[in-house]
Amino acid sequence: MSDHTEFSIAAAAKALDDMRAARPLVQNITNYVAMTISANVLLAVGASPAMVHAVDEVEDFVAISSALVINIGTLSAPWVEGMRRAATQAVALGKPWVLDPVGCGATKFRTDLAVELSRLKPAIIRGNASEIMSLAGAAGAGGKGVDSTAASDAAIEAGKALSLATGAVVAITGETDYVTDGAIVVAIEGGDMLMPLSTALGCALSATVGAFAAVRPPLEAAVYALAVYAAAGAEASTHVAGPGHLPAELCDALYAVDAAMLERRAAISVLETEAA
Amino acid sequence: MSDHTEFSIAAAAKALDDMRAARPLVQNITNYVAMTISANVLLAVGASPAMVHAVDEVEDFVAISSALVINIGTLSAPWVEGMRRAATQAVALGKPWVLDPVGCGATKFRTDLAVELSRLKPAIIRGNASEIMSLAGAAGAGGKGVDSTAASDAAIEAGKALSLATGAVVAITGETDYVTDGAIVVAIEGGDMLMPLSTALGCALSATVGAFAAVRPPLEAAVYALAVYAAAGAEASTHVAGPGHLPAELCDALYAVDAAMLERRAAISVLETEAA
Amino acid sequence: MSDHTEFSIAAAAKALDDMRAARPLVQNITNYVAMTISANVLLAVGASPAMVHAVDEVEDFVAISSALVINIGTLSAPWVEGMRRAATQAVALGKPWVLDPVGCGATKFRTDLAVELSRLKPAIIRGNASEIMSLAGAAGAGGKGVDSTAASDAAIEAGKALSLATGAVVAITGETDYVTDGAIVVAIEGGDMLMPLSTALGCALSATVGAFAAVRPPLEAAVYALAVYAAAGAEASTHVAGPGHLPAELCDALYAVDAAMLERRAAISVLETEAA
Repeated sequence: MSDHTEFSIAAAAKALDDMRAARPLVQNITNYVAMTISANVLLAVGASPAMVHAVDEVEDFVAISSALVINIGTLSAPWVEGMRRAATQAVALGKPWVLDPVGCGATKFRTDLAVELSRLKPAIIRGNASEIMSLAGAAGAGGKGVDSTAASDAAIEAGKALSLATGAVVAITGETDYVTDGAIVVAIEGGDMLMPLSTALGCALSATVGAFAAVRPPLEAAVYALAVYAAAGAEASTHVAGPGHLPAELCDALYAVDAAMLERRAAISVLETEAA
Repeated sequence: MSDHTEFSIAAAAKALDDMRAARPLVQNITNYVAMTISANVLLAVGASPAMVHAVDEVEDFVAISSALVINIGTLSAPWVEGMRRAATQAVALGKPWVLDPVGCGATKFRTDLAVELSRLKPAIIRGNASEIMSLAGAAGAGGKGVDSTAASDAAIEAGKALSLATGAVVAITGETDYVTDGAIVVAIEGGDMLMPLSTALGCALSATVGAFAAVRPPLEAAVYALAVYAAAGAEASTHVAGPGHLPAELCDALYAVDAAMLERRAAISVLETEAA
Repeated sequence: MSDHTEFSIAAAAKALDDMRAARPLVQNITNYVAMTISANVLLAVGASPAMVHAVDEVEDFVAISSALVINIGTLSAPWVEGMRRAATQAVALGKPWVLDPVGCGATKFRTDLAVELSRLKPAIIRGNASEIMSLAGAAGAGGKGVDSTAASDAAIEAGKALSLATGAVVAITGETDYVTDGAIVVAIEGGDMLMPLSTALGCALSATVGAFAAVRPPLEAAVYALAVYAAAGAEASTHVAGPGHLPAELCDALYAVDAAMLERRAAISVLETEAA
């Protein structure tokens, strides 16, 4: 990405329009918990989801998809080979793929696979602070299950290092979200503190990043997907009394989100530029 | 089915009452995305769902079920043998089974399995226009993931051919739904354009068809299940601002649906009779 | 448990506070239908859920968890070894684990596994009346799929026998819930007749029992988890017209539940004491 890129809410709205016009087919190899909400989020925001993981067909399916999302949430060995093949095929066909290293750091099996996949040239890696710090080999990252135990800003340096090591844009999500390509660091504000209390909304965000990666280069895709999600999450939270109805309200907000909602509910700011 | 069958909303309401009185146990071998909503839809409309797929028990479970539904959405090889055995057992025991060929046409693996299963004597095959056209070998069917790219009426001839080739009643769902046994063609109106924006509602409809197949012959079962679902979907859509709350509202409508809602929200018409 | 234990709503509220303060990591090896709602229920009530089942990591994950829940809902052979290892590891590390024998009695495969797992020293077994009676080898238990066909009070004697045979506290849930350690029998009132019409709420209750088992001995954990769930279920049911929105409302109620809601919506009574 060049330092000429100007990140703005207006540009996020344009990326959203372009994504909806393209209605990209987004292939997801994701966890059992996240499948339904990921599909609903993609449909609501304007993409076309498919959940396809079998070794017998992942490569054929990547060929007809516009982007691929791999999430290691409810991992087991038979799924790993499908993940490897799909990622390899995506890169071979020049299609962007997104890695969500759920629970990286919690077990050796999980960390080893996340590291292996991170070397298969993902366009974007999205995780919480603990996952990104663990994946980057940063010291100090806790590993309490799949919920983050570190604030997202503590992971910025780890994210930059991970980006430089893998070539991927890295998105660290939390109370404030950060996106980096190793040089530029962009912060996205929005969302709501209730969101971590509804399962798999982070996983569904990774799916949304995949949809935007079909129509924008990785850095812009990550920033604008996070901005759209942050706006919709903040809007949704105004309609709920607890986490129960949040997934449904989030889908309604993603269905309705436009430039006005983005202006009202999200903010994008560049913290560090390439020259810094 | 004889050409003496008169399809009516009143007959749909009677079939619904009979299904609720029987509370049939419907076994589902379905995809990960559809499992929860399929179970909730079956419970709401008045049936008893079970999700059982392992080769170690599918045959035993078919023996205690009243109908079987097989959906190939998130397919992988270990599930295929369970599908084969369950379908074979259902036919051996004289129990109806429903095939939902999700994403048929998208990959060779998927299409080959759909064709194989269609030869195992399903009572009913339900899909969108693309899936039915692909499965029938009709030319011109697109294959963009699991969403339909062809209007449902374009698939009527393919559906008739598929019905004649397999012996199954074929249901093609879309803005208007069509059901055919190869001679008779019945159209069902209702539902709402938001429904395709909430994932797996088509899969859950296939499960509902299974519930009705427990108490009616295949042609009537498909027509009445689709009418009940169309009415509930139309009713549900009047209570939502987007797709987010649609699954919950659909379940509430299926829980409440009766003759009056059917009259108000759905229509059944015979387009072609056996003599045509 | 000693006969000095006084079960009360106030003690349930204190257990809830302690559980929320500890925010225990609860590992679930559960069925596909129940995963999302189980995670959402755990998050809403104040615990931290993880769904981890692979043989490659279950033992490592048990080591960082505070409690384990094993549910045999959508069983297949590859999952069984993960269940065995996780249960064995939990006992070795002195961590409580909860068994939910979904559909026990429906097929030989399912019943055999439930019996095998019940011998691996679960702290608590939670099921409906049919499942508990089937698992106890009691005569007269029906086996219609995964819905109970026997009233929960009919299973009290079977539950006591199962508790004595396995060393586990046994929780039998239904219109009234019963918990026994083989001597003491405690009844919990609350909930709502709509709850069985929303799928996997029983499974999510087992997950909740796991959260309480992290901070209380098994008998108290089961009684208080059931009381909290009964109160939240009763509260949730006042906000719905059917089963559709019940899962979301249940999560909101679990997020909000406190001593006042417990007083208003649930009741605990000791039916039999150790001396009886």
